[in-house]
Amino acid sequence: MNMPLSAELIAEANTRDLEALEDDYASLGRKLERAGIAIDAIKERVADFSLAVPTWGAGRGGTRFAKFPIAGEPTNIHEKLEDCAVISQLSRLTPRVSPHFPWDKVSDYGALREEAASLGLGFDAVNSNTFQDQPGQAKSYATGSLSSTVAATRQQAVEHNVECIEIGRQLGSTDLTVWVGDGTNFPGQQDLARSLDRYLDAAAQVYAALPDDWRMLLEHKMFEPAFYSTVISDWGSSILAAQELGPKAKCLVDLGHHAPNVNIEQIVARLHRFGKLGGFHFNDSKYGDDDLDSGSINPHQLFLVFNELVEAELNPREGFNPNYMIDQSHNVTDPIESMLSSAETIGACFAKALLVDREALHMAQEANDTMMAFQALRRAYNVDVSPILAMARHENGGAIDMLGTYRESRWRDRKAQERKAVGLGAGIV
Amino acid sequence: MNMPLSAELIAEANTRDLEALEDDYASLGRKLERAGIAIDAIKERVADFSLAVPTWGAGRGGTRFAKFPIAGEPTNIHEKLEDCAVISQLSRLTPRVSPHFPWDKVSDYGALREEAASLGLGFDAVNSNTFQDQPGQAKSYATGSLSSTVAATRQQAVEHNVECIEIGRQLGSTDLTVWVGDGTNFPGQQDLARSLDRYLDAAAQVYAALPDDWRMLLEHKMFEPAFYSTVISDWGSSILAAQELGPKAKCLVDLGHHAPNVNIEQIVARLHRFGKLGGFHFNDSKYGDDDLDSGSINPHQLFLVFNELVEAELNPREGFNPNYMIDQSHNVTDPIESMLSSAETIGACFAKALLVDREALHMAQEANDTMMAFQALRRAYNVDVSPILAMARHENGGAIDMLGTYRESRWRDRKAQERKAVGLGAGIV
Amino acid sequence: MNMPLSAELIAEANTRDLEALEDDYASLGRKLERAGIAIDAIKERVADFSLAVPTWGAGRGGTRFAKFPIAGEPTNIHEKLEDCAVISQLSRLTPRVSPHFPWDKVSDYGALREEAASLGLGFDAVNSNTFQDQPGQAKSYATGSLSSTVAATRQQAVEHNVECIEIGRQLGSTDLTVWVGDGTNFPGQQDLARSLDRYLDAAAQVYAALPDDWRMLLEHKMFEPAFYSTVISDWGSSILAAQELGPKAKCLVDLGHHAPNVNIEQIVARLHRFGKLGGFHFNDSKYGDDDLDSGSINPHQLFLVFNELVEAELNPREGFNPNYMIDQSHNVTDPIESMLSSAETIGACFAKALLVDREALHMAQEANDTMMAFQALRRAYNVDVSPILAMARHENGGAIDMLGTYRESRWRDRKAQERKAVGLGAGIV
Amino acid sequence: MNMPLSAELIAEANTRDLEALEDDYASLGRKLERAGIAIDAIKERVADFSLAVPTWGAGRGGTRFAKFPIAGEPTNIHEKLEDCAVISQLSRLTPRVSPHFPWDKVSDYGALREEAASLGLGFDAVNSNTFQDQPGQAKSYATGSLSSTVAATRQQAVEHNVECIEIGRQLGSTDLTVWVGDGTNFPGQQDLARSLDRYLDAAAQVYAALPDDWRMLLEHKMFEPAFYSTVISDWGSSILAAQELGPKAKCLVDLGHHAPNVNIEQIVARLHRFGKLGGFHFNDSKYGDDDLDSGSINPHQLFLVFNELVEAELNPREGFNPNYMIDQSHNVTDPIESMLSSAETIGACFAKALLVDREALHMAQEANDTMMAFQALRRAYNVDVSPILAMARHENGGAIDMLGTYRESRWRDRKAQERKAVGLGAGIV
Repeated sequence: MNMPLSAELIAEANTRDLEALEDDYASLGRKLERAGIAIDAIKERVADFSLAVPTWGAGRGGTRFAKFPIAGEPTNIHEKLEDCAVISQLSRLTPRVSPHFPWDKVSDYGALREEAASLGLGFDAVNSNTFQDQPGQAKSYATGSLSSTVAATRQQAVEHNVECIEIGRQLGSTDLTVWVGDGTNFPGQQDLARSLDRYLDAAAQVYAALPDDWRMLLEHKMFEPAFYSTVISDWGSSILAAQELGPKAKCLVDLGHHAPNVNIEQIVARLHRFGKLGGFHFNDSKYGDDDLDSGSINPHQLFLVFNELVEAELNPREGFNPNYMIDQSHNVTDPIESMLSSAETIGACFAKALLVDREALHMAQEANDTMMAFQALRRAYNVDVSPILAMARHENGGAIDMLGTYRESRWRDRKAQERKAVGLGAGIV
Repeated sequence: MNMPLSAELIAEANTRDLEALEDDYASLGRKLERAGIAIDAIKERVADFSLAVPTWGAGRGGTRFAKFPIAGEPTNIHEKLEDCAVISQLSRLTPRVSPHFPWDKVSDYGALREEAASLGLGFDAVNSNTFQDQPGQAKSYATGSLSSTVAATRQQAVEHNVECIEIGRQLGSTDLTVWVGDGTNFPGQQDLARSLDRYLDAAAQVYAALPDDWRMLLEHKMFEPAFYSTVISDWGSSILAAQELGPKAKCLVDLGHHAPNVNIEQIVARLHRFGKLGGFHFNDSKYGDDDLDSGSINPHQLFLVFNELVEAELNPREGFNPNYMIDQSHNVTDPIESMLSSAETIGACFAKALLVDREALHMAQEANDTMMAFQALRRAYNVDVSPILAMARHENGGAIDMLGTYRESRWRDRKAQERKAVGLGAGIV
Repeated sequence: MNMPLSAELIAEANTRDLEALEDDYASLGRKLERAGIAIDAIKERVADFSLAVPTWGAGRGGTRFAKFPIAGEPTNIHEKLEDCAVISQLSRLTPRVSPHFPWDKVSDYGALREEAASLGLGFDAVNSNTFQDQPGQAKSYATGSLSSTVAATRQQAVEHNVECIEIGRQLGSTDLTVWVGDGTNFPGQQDLARSLDRYLDAAAQVYAALPDDWRMLLEHKMFEPAFYSTVISDWGSSILAAQELGPKAKCLVDLGHHAPNVNIEQIVARLHRFGKLGGFHFNDSKYGDDDLDSGSINPHQLFLVFNELVEAELNPREGFNPNYMIDQSHNVTDPIESMLSSAETIGACFAKALLVDREALHMAQEANDTMMAFQALRRAYNVDVSPILAMARHENGGAIDMLGTYRESRWRDRKAQERKAVGLGAGIV
Repeated sequence: MNMPLSAELIAEANTRDLEALEDDYASLGRKLERAGIAIDAIKERVADFSLAVPTWGAGRGGTRFAKFPIAGEPTNIHEKLEDCAVISQLSRLTPRVSPHFPWDKVSDYGALREEAASLGLGFDAVNSNTFQDQPGQAKSYATGSLSSTVAATRQQAVEHNVECIEIGRQLGSTDLTVWVGDGTNFPGQQDLARSLDRYLDAAAQVYAALPDDWRMLLEHKMFEPAFYSTVISDWGSSILAAQELGPKAKCLVDLGHHAPNVNIEQIVARLHRFGKLGGFHFNDSKYGDDDLDSGSINPHQLFLVFNELVEAELNPREGFNPNYMIDQSHNVTDPIESMLSSAETIGACFAKALLVDREALHMAQEANDTMMAFQALRRAYNVDVSPILAMARHENGGAIDMLGTYRESRWRDRKAQERKAVGLGAGIV
């Protein structure tokens, strides 16, 4: 193993923070014990929890108006893996990275897999890209990709997805995430029914190339880059497409891809109820697909999602095995810091959901005791679970104070010396 | 036949308006002819078009804050039928009424059917009511109805729906519309998955009671009266429920029951694509389930919905037979005037959709000529089709100037003398 | 004093819960001390915090579809005061009630004030009602009230508001809250500019009747009962109206009266920045004016509002004296339980906002250290402040476990024996 | 004059279309005459109407995901002027262009002004750009611009705006449009009040540099590029800022910069009512700042905006002189075609608003005859005014069939031979 940060640095920082943590952990332990909950059991569940980080999330994001790069940003897959390893080493929650092609293309995927493994990282879902054109590409995706009216364009998109599966096999992935930018900006631009027909036909060709133990995760999105209609616009379109494709097709929920006010936790419950919950792209949003840090805007919603996930695990119906990934655009922060903070928030929501007294909840639901059913959730939400997460990290070699330890490491400053600078974003208005 | 307004009144008014109409109709005919369209063929299609009006829409609506009644409002099913007959007589577009139980309960449904027939009216979809309690009711719907945790309440709701089917058979209906107010106001109030399980189980019992030639129309709604979650909240939940229930279960689209910004015409296309488009509750909205007059806020959206319907009719896939109904709350107008105006608007959107040059549209779509595809729709939308609708009405005995003729009839003033006054609304805040 | 619940009942319940509370309070005290915060100082601030409850909130609410009453609901101002006193006694956070006229009309307001005082209650802002008609009223508000085109209707609305001020003087109030339902359901129904002119002219007459030490709180609302436009639709309209009226006119923020996605905490900051922050109607919402329990849907948003309030208090600019009130519709719970829970949640958000390390926050803001600025808020939000609130209540004679103690008191069951039953809601659809 | 298209081409095309137009125009003339309206008077008003097109709108737009360029796109201000001249020549509605700096920087603005004049074009509002960094710029706008905590950055932004004014003077402009991307992505990132303080202080310095006959148009935007808060987020913030700055500061309404469901026509009425309506950025949207073609999604809303503008002109209160500009992102069409179509749509909405029978409207409003007030608007909206616009164009040397004539000109194909190719967009995710 070749971890990016020195274990001594982390250990020293933890030594400084341990006494306070032990007091907080013991206090919370007594409080939970009074409620009949063993804190160590929750800690074990949290220690077993994990999620993936996306390679593209390691760089600064931007908008159509601008991108403001930071010194020391990674500019290739090797530097991105290094940064992801920092996140994993400090948080002990993110042992996998999710690659994106062609952005992360290399000549030798076996070597890349070993490189990642040496950093303590494995590979998660492979992401295809048919929403933008690459230099020298035969057909443009200007007319869409899997749903394009142009047969050769659809074929190119299918082949790219099949290539992603092949790369993923070499990397050890078992999921292909398919998000397309296909859609329209004008009423009438395309026939809404025939576009879906073409999408389904092309997607079936991708599906046919899936290995037996793989899943195809369909990601819906309400708008952007298309602003009048999108082919897979909502969970309804997504689940119907997944039904047509077959049992290996599942639905992926990105928290920022819904209409305003929509009850996302109920969508999670519905997808699970009908056997199609495939996974998550965690982020947060206030207006649209803002790709803000997970739980930064509405942490309670994230808790309610995890409440459904804990219920789903207890009632697996047709199985329960969602893929968890962070998918954020870090426009104004150091991406490593944002993903450390987000991993903590996501883990905390999982821990809080585990604290819900489900027997009390179910009894109150059955008795239509609305206030007590609500309080069963709210009591758990109110608990400050940070000591549980911090203790789990500490015991696994991570940092009690992730952000503080990261800053002490001066990682970004050091990388700013080593790595080449990133240009300004284009600012497409 | 025993039409409520005198045919002479209508004929006289039409005489006054006919010359101008003939000029407008001829002018439009020349314009359409230059585009290769025979105006008389469009007029025939419009003359064959029809939609239902709801009995409850004949009275003034209100909000939880207040209701402001008007003199001469109908207060029972007999008076409501009379008012619906006025709408039908003037518009020639609304030959059916949609009853609601228990609001429209009578002792002799055979007699009611004859009473309606004598007014030129038939019966459309029957609507059940399990969202409010009636005096003397055994079980309260405070805990929900088809999804209630209380078995006896679910049973009562099932039995009420089965009774509605029985009444509908006597009235000549073939559709049962099921909308439930079931849902929650608090996170945790009910388990989101088990609520749907109970709903599906109870709905299956209603489904089992459907005659062979009947349909069960499921109506989804995002919120109100429940404000955190609703059991059938969106088209995704609706279509999955309809799939589980069976081929006679279809989905009904109320234009005001969606999340903000949602592309409703695409939902229509999706429901048709998957064989589950059952019908419509036409109204308009700016904020929520505002139940405003059809097309009063966004007439272009209504046109785009009809554009999908005309496409669907040409590509019937698994059949095309949607149920069309107005469902509005007339809080600030004379309900007869609102429904006359709404029927005109709906008919106009249908006529405009018929005017779309579909060959040009499809060619532009196939060629990714976005601007010309859009223009194919926009050219049709821009046409003022009122002469077509007015001529169709005139030729069928309706009024060229519906609102003017209605006002001349002094119907409401006369009814204000005859009918008993309505009390103030309760104003539940 | 004549408190509704026995002090012994509360004391006994507290005895049972005290040991655990003392442990939690001491643990939290150590944690805060490590951050340089004295827990007792926070507790004192919380003990000094108070908010009003509305008399109408003591009864079950409903929607236009239905109301489901509960046994033992209060049906007059005297019973409502009793229930409000229960809330105050248990929570020690709600010493004032906000009355509504004509709903709470009595013949002797001096006696009513004494009756309230004997229950430990004072009177808060007086609320006028010009959004519904009362039996025997001279002019209907069907055309609006302060903005009606009918001069006599405007006059009636002005006089009603002036009467409310007079009643308020007798009750000891110093604020008049003015919310009107005025608006339109159709484009064109009223001229948008002239409607505001009439509103401003009539509101100026009310303003002129304000005693020197009174404020007039203008409450804006985006929609409902009007569904196309409302006269005071947003904070922009509200503050411009308040500017025209004069320095005693301020703006009231109801958390459910905004467009989707709007940043409410920024509106609070803006109103304060321009000297017009008058107060709050606390509740929560997911879709519209849902009037759900405060913080039940988005507790983080409520925390962010209090974060602005704490900032505003530290930077009073033109003064800082907002009026705080709960305004919820308790459709599915016992109103007393909802207001106990809501008062706790509101108090907790205030306590968390007090915990923010403002020096660290401001330094991070100044340095554009986005992550640390965010963490300064998030660290405070994550703290479980319930021990602080519980200890403050306990020391002031309130209940550590409010809901448990209330249920033990069997208050509602006892009232169900004494009070007359409430009828079913009208169900205006 | 040196118009880009041959006058013969246009004349020939018009010859082909004239007979049909004359029939349609005469028919509509008879119809309007029956309503007491002289069609020629409307045509004169339309012929006098004009709006600006933005230089940046002449190129293909894109999103953060991708830009798909088209062959023959303009890549510098000279080519952009040429394309804008094509739009103006065909439509006779867009005689001015709105430049953007530093994008349109040249060394000799006198020469640029002459170049434009030779194409029949003048210059409209000057747009500053402080939302993205330019190569070699001293201070980055990563921390914001006019509201940045960094004094030197604010100073740089002020100086850039002052420079824009100076350039504008040379170009003949009299308006400066100020839109800033300033805002935050995290709660706490900046203090919401102090950010506005800094903005107002810096904006006052820009204001101080305005010539006497200039206006400063403040453009608010709810979100993007900032996704938690923006400094000038809504019309409320905008008008309060304009009030503080002074009488030459006005508010600019971009139709896509509002919260969902917001009544934009009422905002227009409010801004006019309080003397601060400065102008428009016309476009359309379904979800956010989609920058779609004007009226392509909701043409009725655009009509309602013009209905307010016609009312405002009749009731000028503190004056009526709004600046009209198209501001669209042409991601999937030829920008020239989109702007031709949009200019037609905007002109049509103006024409329809002129057709409203205002006396009937006002009488119905005064009488609370809601249905007739609505019908007064709806009758005008239903009229197909295309013959009026086409005749006005024809008589002014423009094209009856703008899109057809443009395609016949083969302008884009010819430019594709002459102009250099544009690279792929960056695709910032």
